[in-house]
Amino acid sequence: MEKMKEKPAISKATTKRLSLYLRCLKELNAKNITRIKSSELANLTQVGSATIRRDFSHFGELGRSGYGYNVKDLITVFSGILDTKEEKKIALIGVGNLGQALLKNNFRRNDNLNIVCAFDNDPNKIGQIIDGFLVHDLSELPEVFVKENIQVAISTVPSRYAQEAIDIVVKNGVTAILNFAPDPLNVPENVNIRYIDLTSELQSLIYFDEMVNPS
Amino acid sequence: MEKMKEKPAISKATTKRLSLYLRCLKELNAKNITRIKSSELANLTQVGSATIRRDFSHFGELGRSGYGYNVKDLITVFSGILDTKEEKKIALIGVGNLGQALLKNNFRRNDNLNIVCAFDNDPNKIGQIIDGFLVHDLSELPEVFVKENIQVAISTVPSRYAQEAIDIVVKNGVTAILNFAPDPLNVPENVNIRYIDLTSELQSLIYFDEMVNPS
Repeated sequence: MEKMKEKPAISKATTKRLSLYLRCLKELNAKNITRIKSSELANLTQVGSATIRRDFSHFGELGRSGYGYNVKDLITVFSGILDTKEEKKIALIGVGNLGQALLKNNFRRNDNLNIVCAFDNDPNKIGQIIDGFLVHDLSELPEVFVKENIQVAISTVPSRYAQEAIDIVVKNGVTAILNFAPDPLNVPENVNIRYIDLTSELQSLIYFDEMVNPS
Repeated sequence: MEKMKEKPAISKATTKRLSLYLRCLKELNAKNITRIKSSELANLTQVGSATIRRDFSHFGELGRSGYGYNVKDLITVFSGILDTKEEKKIALIGVGNLGQALLKNNFRRNDNLNIVCAFDNDPNKIGQIIDGFLVHDLSELPEVFVKENIQVAISTVPSRYAQEAIDIVVKNGVTAILNFAPDPLNVPENVNIRYIDLTSELQSLIYFDEMVNPS
């Protein structure tokens, strides 16, 4: 419970909007825009400006009337909030091409994010050492999760096996899951899945680009 | 110009919201929710319900008064709109771990998305065949982009080299860029960059999960 006190008591909805704000602010900063009004940020994010002002008010006096907000200051504050302060032990499920890239990189930008174990269902991989990690069978997951105190899972398991893999992860107490297969999964209400769908991201980028730059 | 006619004439802002709607709808579908009202979707997406109804009206009669919208129908329509209909030739810049995973997978879910050439600045990689691709020096980019008719670029170049690499890409006429380094880049107004920042995604997932499931 002590842990909760370290974080400002903000709503789920505000939390969800923080990464959206952060992404927009970083894009503004890249364009050398130094300050922004809530009405302008509302246009960019499609969040109402009253909501933005209320969200921002949770983090202290960030803006000045008539001046707006300093873009760099907001980036510093919001990055600080989202930054993970304690070590999180992560399990990787699916040691294919993408899984191996994740094992090799292992979130080196943040010392607190560490993949510590890896699972696959391929008999040719199970028991092998890949990129320094012993690949476990999914049947060993309950034991390894307890032993390693796993709090987060990343799945690169293809869609057709993903539900089965995620069911095991959820059954063993993990509620934070980053999932690289695009098909939505059934999970209990308290489990948080974030989907990273590279094909859809690329498709939507191309669609948008063709609207702006018709060939 | 013919090409533009194939697509409904919708605004940039609507286009940007389409992938947001699609992601929410897929999550609803995963939870076996079959229909939704614009007011409910407004709550989930933080987009105003009037805006949602106006956006949806561009795509025909999708909803019925009092009933709302059928979730699966919306998914079919919006996926169809965002789906890439013509072959897009893609250049990969940065043949590290993640780049190699992208070369191996090569968007096999969509036949129209094809990485056709790869670039790096590492003398040990240039001139080598990696995952079936000859790795080119960035100095060869102008020639290769013309020869291969490159329309899209994906960069996995680390932040400190990313601006330099993207400058060359932009100079050679590509306006759609998927970028895996988190630091925002300076590009002209008409260039569309989408940032995929796995560390930030994971951090924000963990932050949100700790709010919902305090340990």
